[in-house]
Amino acid sequence: MSKINSLVTGGAGFIGSHVARHCLALGHNVIVLDDLSGGFEDHIPAGAVFVKGSVTDHQLISELFAKYKFDYVYHLAAYAAEGLSHFIRRFNYETNLIGSINLINEAVKAEVKCFVFTSSIAVYGPGQLPMTEDMTPIPEDPYGVSKYAVELDLKAAHHMFGLNYVIFRPHNVYGENQNIGDKYRNVIGIFMNQIMQGKPMTIFGDGEQTRAFSYIDDVAIPIANCVNNPKTYNEVFNIGADKPYTINELVGVVCKHLNAQPNTKYLQARKEVVHAYSDHAKAHRIFGTNGAVSLDEGIKKMASWAKVVGARKSQEFNNVEIRKNMPEGW
Amino acid sequence: MSKINSLVTGGAGFIGSHVARHCLALGHNVIVLDDLSGGFEDHIPAGAVFVKGSVTDHQLISELFAKYKFDYVYHLAAYAAEGLSHFIRRFNYETNLIGSINLINEAVKAEVKCFVFTSSIAVYGPGQLPMTEDMTPIPEDPYGVSKYAVELDLKAAHHMFGLNYVIFRPHNVYGENQNIGDKYRNVIGIFMNQIMQGKPMTIFGDGEQTRAFSYIDDVAIPIANCVNNPKTYNEVFNIGADKPYTINELVGVVCKHLNAQPNTKYLQARKEVVHAYSDHAKAHRIFGTNGAVSLDEGIKKMASWAKVVGARKSQEFNNVEIRKNMPEGW
Repeated sequence: MSKINSLVTGGAGFIGSHVARHCLALGHNVIVLDDLSGGFEDHIPAGAVFVKGSVTDHQLISELFAKYKFDYVYHLAAYAAEGLSHFIRRFNYETNLIGSINLINEAVKAEVKCFVFTSSIAVYGPGQLPMTEDMTPIPEDPYGVSKYAVELDLKAAHHMFGLNYVIFRPHNVYGENQNIGDKYRNVIGIFMNQIMQGKPMTIFGDGEQTRAFSYIDDVAIPIANCVNNPKTYNEVFNIGADKPYTINELVGVVCKHLNAQPNTKYLQARKEVVHAYSDHAKAHRIFGTNGAVSLDEGIKKMASWAKVVGARKSQEFNNVEIRKNMPEGW
Repeated sequence: MSKINSLVTGGAGFIGSHVARHCLALGHNVIVLDDLSGGFEDHIPAGAVFVKGSVTDHQLISELFAKYKFDYVYHLAAYAAEGLSHFIRRFNYETNLIGSINLINEAVKAEVKCFVFTSSIAVYGPGQLPMTEDMTPIPEDPYGVSKYAVELDLKAAHHMFGLNYVIFRPHNVYGENQNIGDKYRNVIGIFMNQIMQGKPMTIFGDGEQTRAFSYIDDVAIPIANCVNNPKTYNEVFNIGADKPYTINELVGVVCKHLNAQPNTKYLQARKEVVHAYSDHAKAHRIFGTNGAVSLDEGIKKMASWAKVVGARKSQEFNNVEIRKNMPEGW
């Protein structure tokens, strides 16, 4: 039997590099497509074929599908800075929506067996808590809108062409390989980078907003494995940790594992959801994901890795489209 | 007092040319932006400034905003072939979503007073009937997804930047200036073109699907006027006729006013919504639109116009992205 070919977009990025590693462990031929805008070549696991390029390049996508005849597409490439998406609207939709559509077009034509898409809890908007998969999402920022539009487009492609999909909505994922130099997203990485640079940890608002931070393996393993379980096909799954923590509580855990004194700087609150946590009963039922890594344990693992790689210089996003009302410090 | 500057995108197209005309009647300086992909230069009303170009050209949009300092944006440019959108996904999102985002970006920066957006009942998907504005839409085709994404993006822009908007969801509009050579959309125009070419009228399915066909003035006048009524700001309105007709009933009315014998050809049903009609109580309340033009009267007016302009050669859409499962006759 010939080997299974899988395309992992964003495979040099954070979640993508872990999914690529788990796909290799499943015995797939893994082709990683990444433009290295947020990822790093040395995160791509050994054994994967690396193609440098963007999902927005539809000719390249078309060539890759012709060459590799993919069985599965794992689409993780995205520019995931939710808060920044208000200020980079066009870039957000070009990258996150048009890029996805290029892949859906080719996946339909090539009749891939399953299209695995990493969406986001950003689709829910400021609705009831906990967020459950049977709610009708009403996203409230351009990032959430782009992710929800792709979800709806996948459903349309399934209805019209029979394309199978699995949609995951992960929740504030952290862990090794995260781009801790990204100053616009991922508070745990931002804190670690600030500590290692001797800077204060910056907090928007009073720090009492809560998130259920999710360790990478609890997310990447179900994403990689889902293609082998047809029960997951054409379903949507929240995925990640169950327990919410305040940002102030997080400060303590991060400082403990980086042996740092809490040194914080409170900035003006952003327009963001105050509390966010998902219901994961559906994922637990299908994937048996009940042994979630605790925040203490996960931060410990990530901190060990961060100490080795050291601080990263924060990159500015160079093509901001609207500067009006941008949060302080950006 | 200096004159009001209004941008009307798609102002050489069907609804746009009528909106431009009504804006001129309100005393606005009207700048029409249209790439003539679906519109005709001779539909642009006398007195409007015409700029040939696409909403997808963000540099051009930026230059226009700098030059004219628009008070109002009426965004009607779109590629509105709902059924075809499955097969031209990328083109659909580039035109209908990215094009809109280019305008929203500039409208935020220029602090325009109101952004009037023509959405579609396609956002509703196959939900309950009648469709009302307080339902949460779940669009089911790429066209509806792109329109809904723009609606959500406008709400986000209002929340973040204070941009005022008015969203209209018109319902199967017909009338003078319709592109009757477009074979992918607008059944009334298609029927008139087929009759004048001596061809049979093509019907997908059994012809018992219903639509509430809306005469252009009942839609274009409220769209043009809304900017003068702050009660409409940041609201969504269904707009159009109340009475649904079957496609088979429509055949009779069209034939009557074009003095033709009913000559029909039934094709395989498309995957489309069978019945669609909207509740317009909100529009009636705010706009006082209770004198709707009847189907008989409206078709009579359109038929008189069609007889003068004659049949149009149907254009093929040249950049179909997916050919699989395309309806018969396309």
